[in-house]
Amino acid sequence: MSVDLAAAAAAVPDGVVDRIGAARHVLTICHEHPEADALGAALTVALMVEARGGTATPVCADPVPAMYGFLPGMERFRTAPDPAADYDLIVVVDCGELERVGPVLADHAALFARVPIVNLDHHLSNPGFGAVSWVDADAAATCEMATLLAVRLGVPLAAFDGILATALMAGLVMDTATFQHPNATPRSLLVAAALRAAGAPLSEISRRLYRTKPNRQLALFGRVLARLEASPDGRVVWSTLELADMDATGAISEHSEGLIDLLGQSETAEVAILFKEQADGTRLSVRTRPGGVDATVLAGRFGGGGHARAAGATVALPVAEARPVVLGEATRLAAAVVR
Amino acid sequence: MSVDLAAAAAAVPDGVVDRIGAARHVLTICHEHPEADALGAALTVALMVEARGGTATPVCADPVPAMYGFLPGMERFRTAPDPAADYDLIVVVDCGELERVGPVLADHAALFARVPIVNLDHHLSNPGFGAVSWVDADAAATCEMATLLAVRLGVPLAAFDGILATALMAGLVMDTATFQHPNATPRSLLVAAALRAAGAPLSEISRRLYRTKPNRQLALFGRVLARLEASPDGRVVWSTLELADMDATGAISEHSEGLIDLLGQSETAEVAILFKEQADGTRLSVRTRPGGVDATVLAGRFGGGGHARAAGATVALPVAEARPVVLGEATRLAAAVVR
Repeated sequence: MSVDLAAAAAAVPDGVVDRIGAARHVLTICHEHPEADALGAALTVALMVEARGGTATPVCADPVPAMYGFLPGMERFRTAPDPAADYDLIVVVDCGELERVGPVLADHAALFARVPIVNLDHHLSNPGFGAVSWVDADAAATCEMATLLAVRLGVPLAAFDGILATALMAGLVMDTATFQHPNATPRSLLVAAALRAAGAPLSEISRRLYRTKPNRQLALFGRVLARLEASPDGRVVWSTLELADMDATGAISEHSEGLIDLLGQSETAEVAILFKEQADGTRLSVRTRPGGVDATVLAGRFGGGGHARAAGATVALPVAEARPVVLGEATRLAAAVVR
Repeated sequence: MSVDLAAAAAAVPDGVVDRIGAARHVLTICHEHPEADALGAALTVALMVEARGGTATPVCADPVPAMYGFLPGMERFRTAPDPAADYDLIVVVDCGELERVGPVLADHAALFARVPIVNLDHHLSNPGFGAVSWVDADAAATCEMATLLAVRLGVPLAAFDGILATALMAGLVMDTATFQHPNATPRSLLVAAALRAAGAPLSEISRRLYRTKPNRQLALFGRVLARLEASPDGRVVWSTLELADMDATGAISEHSEGLIDLLGQSETAEVAILFKEQADGTRLSVRTRPGGVDATVLAGRFGGGGHARAAGATVALPVAEARPVVLGEATRLAAAVVR
């Protein structure tokens, strides 16, 4: 491996460096329903253009969610291009396809048709749209790529009083769950080292993105974990989120995010399942242990899908009826695992 | 910052490199009640000696806890020096003072008196015992230091089929909570990048050390989180672990570890407190938000102590009597915080 950031930055295509380096008035845009990697990449590419004397507008079709408000620079986001700007480049970041920018695409169709597009993304499925495209599915985050771009553009990572490095680190922390996921490569860690050295407050970013929860979410987690159950051999572990839990805690639907990951921490589980009671059926979330059951096989039996370790499905049955059927299937799959 | 591992390795004192590099028969020993950083450093220094043609015995006074059994090489630990070995060097790792090696010191007093000691440690309080001492309180883990030592000794990080890199990464992950704690410096991340490149399975190590829990521990967390309470302004958040929770879940005392950190994730809390009911009183664990209340001040009011963000105390009162007193004090301290 290279432990040399300059060497790693050689991966940035010259065409990307040349286009962004030469642009004077740039629209940077990320996907709708944004998270930290999308916002971080759109903000930082705009800052890079400005560091080189250009002007830039970071745009996201949706307002920046409150949970990302702690990141400096987020107040710069607009939900539409600046009508007064004469853009000579559009940089689309973290969008697996161009349509992911949302309604802003149709609302400004002439702009998107006229101005050249640079496509920076780390989704394998990206078809490579735009005049110039850099898609690196080995990058843990688009912000990992944007860091290498900054190096190539000669923009110091410590520029803008830490705003640049902080936003880039936020994207990397978001998409790797603070380097816990297998997508964190040597390069990801090398980039993190450089961003940390440039002043990014890694621990605080991680705390805000992953270790800060509304009290009603903590209480919801408590109610659901307290009724955790396991099969006799422990290989299948599950719990149920009842509609009554939402009323009792004041939690809302999005607060159930992360709960299945806690169930997935079970020492004995080959398969962890969260049953979420819904008004018209039951939603399953599934996590499986590395090297064992393929979660898409279990979810697929019920018309769902996902990834090998994390999948989901919706069953049109009340939870009391769905549960024994799903657990039967899960038990059968888990029994076949040899450790 | 340096993003160059060789440059970072210049920090290893020549005396340490020379002594370990020249030794032929080495006893490496870590502290009793070991965790992954202690075990990782003792194992890897032994491997480094062996890579250079010597022999080595990794020792820990206590058996390796089962949770670290997944780390390759742990089966090599002995609980005492090899009586047949003719040691010419003792390397004491991760011990803030020599006595931390445990009863093995008194049991083998002649050996420890006769053979020169090299002291490798990252605890600020280390007095610098031994013939040669390298104490680096800026190192997140002793394994961060041991990685630099391997570089200086010319032992490839990928040696021993990944066993070396895996054990070193385990120590680094353990002591930084997978790079979430503020002690993870640019150098820590640079070392992690090199270890990851050498084959250390970072995600799996993190999962085993931080995201694997007995089911009864998850159920215990559930019961305690479900009864989370907050002051009217949300600045003080608390819950109580009752003795009955242990009976109901089958959990044991050590399973309450990590619970206060979950309470500390509260979005509103300046001060998070876990009250643990005990047969003869109440144990408090305290976490506070960065930049606010000093946890040692609150714990100090009740005869306890710790760090600014994490502290504890024991109160000789039943929980129902201790709670209002502690909450009153916590509320007063939290009210003074200006954000």
